Amino acid sequence: MGGRTEMLTKIENVWVLNPRAPLSLRQSQSHAVDVFYGCVIIKDDTIIYAGKPEGWNDDGGLAGGAQDRQFDTIVDGKGKVLIPGLINCHTHVPMVMLRGLADDLELHNWLEQAVFPIEDRMTPEDVYWASKVGIAEMIRGGTTCFSEMYFHMDAVAQAVEETGIRAVLSRGFAGSGDDGGAAKLADGLDFALRQRNGAGGRITTMLGPHAPYTCSPDFLREVAALAAEHQLPIHIHVAETAREVSEIREQYGRTPVELLEDVGLFGTRLLAAHGVHLNDRDMEILAARGAAVAHCPASNLKLASGIAPIGRMAAKGINVCLGTDGAASNNNLDMISEMRLAALLAKGISGDPTAMPAADAMHAVVAGGAQALALEGVVGSISPGMKADLALIDYQKPHLTPDANLVSLLVYSCRADDVTDVMVNGQWLMRDGLLQTIDEYEAMEHCNKSIRRIKGSL
Amino acid sequence: MGGRTEMLTKIENVWVLNPRAPLSLRQSQSHAVDVFYGCVIIKDDTIIYAGKPEGWNDDGGLAGGAQDRQFDTIVDGKGKVLIPGLINCHTHVPMVMLRGLADDLELHNWLEQAVFPIEDRMTPEDVYWASKVGIAEMIRGGTTCFSEMYFHMDAVAQAVEETGIRAVLSRGFAGSGDDGGAAKLADGLDFALRQRNGAGGRITTMLGPHAPYTCSPDFLREVAALAAEHQLPIHIHVAETAREVSEIREQYGRTPVELLEDVGLFGTRLLAAHGVHLNDRDMEILAARGAAVAHCPASNLKLASGIAPIGRMAAKGINVCLGTDGAASNNNLDMISEMRLAALLAKGISGDPTAMPAADAMHAVVAGGAQALALEGVVGSISPGMKADLALIDYQKPHLTPDANLVSLLVYSCRADDVTDVMVNGQWLMRDGLLQTIDEYEAMEHCNKSIRRIKGSL
Repeated sequence: MGGRTEMLTKIENVWVLNPRAPLSLRQSQSHAVDVFYGCVIIKDDTIIYAGKPEGWNDDGGLAGGAQDRQFDTIVDGKGKVLIPGLINCHTHVPMVMLRGLADDLELHNWLEQAVFPIEDRMTPEDVYWASKVGIAEMIRGGTTCFSEMYFHMDAVAQAVEETGIRAVLSRGFAGSGDDGGAAKLADGLDFALRQRNGAGGRITTMLGPHAPYTCSPDFLREVAALAAEHQLPIHIHVAETAREVSEIREQYGRTPVELLEDVGLFGTRLLAAHGVHLNDRDMEILAARGAAVAHCPASNLKLASGIAPIGRMAAKGINVCLGTDGAASNNNLDMISEMRLAALLAKGISGDPTAMPAADAMHAVVAGGAQALALEGVVGSISPGMKADLALIDYQKPHLTPDANLVSLLVYSCRADDVTDVMVNGQWLMRDGLLQTIDEYEAMEHCNKSIRRIKGSL
Repeated sequence: MGGRTEMLTKIENVWVLNPRAPLSLRQSQSHAVDVFYGCVIIKDDTIIYAGKPEGWNDDGGLAGGAQDRQFDTIVDGKGKVLIPGLINCHTHVPMVMLRGLADDLELHNWLEQAVFPIEDRMTPEDVYWASKVGIAEMIRGGTTCFSEMYFHMDAVAQAVEETGIRAVLSRGFAGSGDDGGAAKLADGLDFALRQRNGAGGRITTMLGPHAPYTCSPDFLREVAALAAEHQLPIHIHVAETAREVSEIREQYGRTPVELLEDVGLFGTRLLAAHGVHLNDRDMEILAARGAAVAHCPASNLKLASGIAPIGRMAAKGINVCLGTDGAASNNNLDMISEMRLAALLAKGISGDPTAMPAADAMHAVVAGGAQALALEGVVGSISPGMKADLALIDYQKPHLTPDANLVSLLVYSCRADDVTDVMVNGQWLMRDGLLQTIDEYEAMEHCNKSIRRIKGSL
C-alpha cells in the first residue's frame, strides 16, 4: 500500500445534538438528547470521533496518532448545530408529480379523479425526474434516508444512486395471486434482490405488499414465505382508515394487524405505515413482533383519515417513527415540519402538554427511524462506527432566537431552510445551501414538463 | 405645486393571488382566489392598479395618462407570486424572549415556573428588542400586520414605528377594578388613545382585557363603557381551555361568551382569541355580534387546550382568522405554517377532507384577518385603493414543484423562507431576502443577552 487514500473530514466548533438510543424497545418514552460542543471526525463514509475537541487531541485513535492530522476538509460549525440526518420512514417520492393536484378531495375522488389517472400516465422517466425533485427537497431539509414504496422503482433507484442519498426501496404491489399479482410480486422480489446493497450499500430493500385490503390473505402468505426465504423486511400500509378496518373485519373477522399475524407477515421485520386505527390488542401484537409504525401526521390529517394514537403505541413499546407519505397528501417531504406536527398533535389529542417532548420527537426522526428500517448500528446517531449521515443547521436567525434551548429550537421552531449542509455516507450532498449532486433546476423543469404533458392527455 | 412628489412602484410579470372577499359574513366558506398574471402599481402607500399589463396601458388612470410612466422602482416578479401581506390576528410578540424555555409543561407549570418569572423580569428595553426579533421573523415570513396584547406596550409601539410593520396594539390588563386593575385599565386606555393612528396610521389600537376568568364582570362592564365611549374595539382571550369554561360556568352560571354579552362587551367590535371551547349558542352570539375568532391552532395543540371547531364557526357565519399566539406556546410567529396547520387540522378533526380548502385558508390570513382587526377596506386584498401591504414568494424551488397549482403551493407546500420581498404601506421592508429596516443581528444579540441576564437572576 502506498500513501494514505482515506478521506478525512472534521466538523468543528459545533453544537452536536444526538438523541440517546433507548435502552430497549419498551423504553420508548422520554429519550434524552446529548448536547455537547465539540467536533466530529469522519473517515471515508464512517464517523470515527464525536466529542469535545480535547478528547480528539488526547485520544484520537487513527493510525499514526498525529495531533495535527491532515484533514481533507475542515468545516467550521460556528453558529450551527449538527444532527444525525433525518429519516423519512414512509413516502412515495415520485408523487411529487401530483403536488397541488389532489387537494381538498374525498379519498375516493382523490384516488379515482386525481391520483390514478396521473399515475397511469407516468413513465419511468417521469418517475426519475420527480424522484430527483423530491430527493432535492429532502436533502435541502436535512433528510438523508427515505423509505419508499412505488412503481418504476428502478428509476427511483437510479435517482438514489446518482444523488447520493440513502434509501430503503420497495416495489409496491397488490393482488390475489391470480390476477396479475403473482407477476407483480415476482417483480417486487426481483427488484428487492437485485437492488439490495446497491449504490455502494446506500440502498437496502424490502418487500412492499400494498395493504391488507388490497392483497388477499393467500397472496400475503406467499409474500411472507418469500420474505422469510430471502430475509427481506416488509413495508406495508396498515389501518390507515376506519373504513379499511371495518372492511377487513367484515371480510375476515379480524383487524388488519390480526390478519397480518395470521398470514405470517411478522416473520421478518415489518414496517407498518400509518397505523391510525389500532386497538390495544393490535398494538400489543405490533410491539411483541418488534414492528415499527411510520406515523404520517400531515397526510392523515389532510385525507381526514384520523390521528394515530402514538402516545399509547409508545407506551406499549412500539417504535414510532415518522414519514411524510407522498406529496399528493402532505404536500411536502419535510421531516422537520413532520417532527414538529407529530409533537404538537400528540399533546393536542391526548390533552397532555407533556406528551411527546422535544427529545422524543427528535428521537423518532433519527434513531427511531433507523431502527424501523433495520438500519440501527448503521445510521441514526452521531457516534464512532456509524455511517456519516449528518445535517448542519444554522440557528442564527430571528425565528431561532434566543438560542437558549437548541433541542427545542430544532423541534419546535426550525424550518427546512435552516439546514445548510448535508452529508450522506461521508459525501457532501449540500454545502452552504448548494446541492452538490443534483441540478435542481434541470429536475424541476423536467418535472413541470412531465405534468403538463400528462395533464394535457387527461 | 411643483414637480411630482409621489413615489410610483410597479411589480410586473407576476402571478397575483388574491382571495375574493366573501359576499357576506355568513358566506364564509369556499372563498375563491383570483389568480392572474399581470402587474400591480403602487403610488406612495396605496395600490392604484392590479391587473393585466395591457389593462394598465389602456386605462391607467394616473394624471397625465402617460403610457411610459416614470416609475421610481420596477420589480420583476418572474417566477414569483404576489399575495396580500399576511395578518397575524393574535400574538404576544415580546414572548419571543421565552422561545424554547417553556416547552412540554402542564399549563400551570408553564405559567408559574416558566412564563411569569421571566415576564416579571422583562424591562421595556427587553420588550423592545424581543419585539424587533419577532417583527424581523414576521416580515421574513410575509406577515405585514399583527394584533398584539402585552405589557410595556410603548416599547412595542416604538419597534412597530421603527420597523415599518403594521400593528393593532392593545395593552393587556386584568383585575377586578379595586385590586390595581383600575390603574391598569386607565393605562390601557391611555395607551390606546395616545397610540391610535400612530406611526403614520400603521398603528391602530384596541382595549385588551385579558380574559373573562381574569377580569371581574364589573370590571368588564367598565371596559365595555370606555370602549363604547372612545369607539375602541376589544381584544380578549375567550374560551381557551375547558377549565376556563367550567370555572366561569360555576362562578357565573354562564359560558364565557354569554358572560361577555351580559357585561356589554360586544358594543364595539370584538376579537376573541382562541375560542377553543364554544357551544352552538356561543357561536350564534359571536356571529350575531360580528365578532371574529382568532384561531391559534399550534398554540392550542402545544398547550393541549384542544382544537377549535372552526368548521362549525364558519358555518355559523363567524369570521375565523388566524394567529400564532406567543412564541412560548407556538414556538414561531409564522403565519404560513399556521395557515397550513389550520387547513390540515380542520380536515383531520371533522373527518371531512374537503373542510377548509386552500382558498378558505388563504382568505383567513388576509381578508379575514383584515376584517377581524377592523382594517377591511385598508388591507387584506390587492385592489386599487387598498394600502400596499404585499409579499412576493419565490416558487422556483424543489418543494414548490411542479407549479401547476399556485394556491395549493402557497397553502400546503410553501414555507416562510420562500418569501423574498415584503412591502408595508408602500415601503419595502424586505428586498431579495434582506431586511431593510431592521438590523436583525443587533436585535438577536440583544435578545440573547436579555434572556441570559434574566435566567441568571432566577
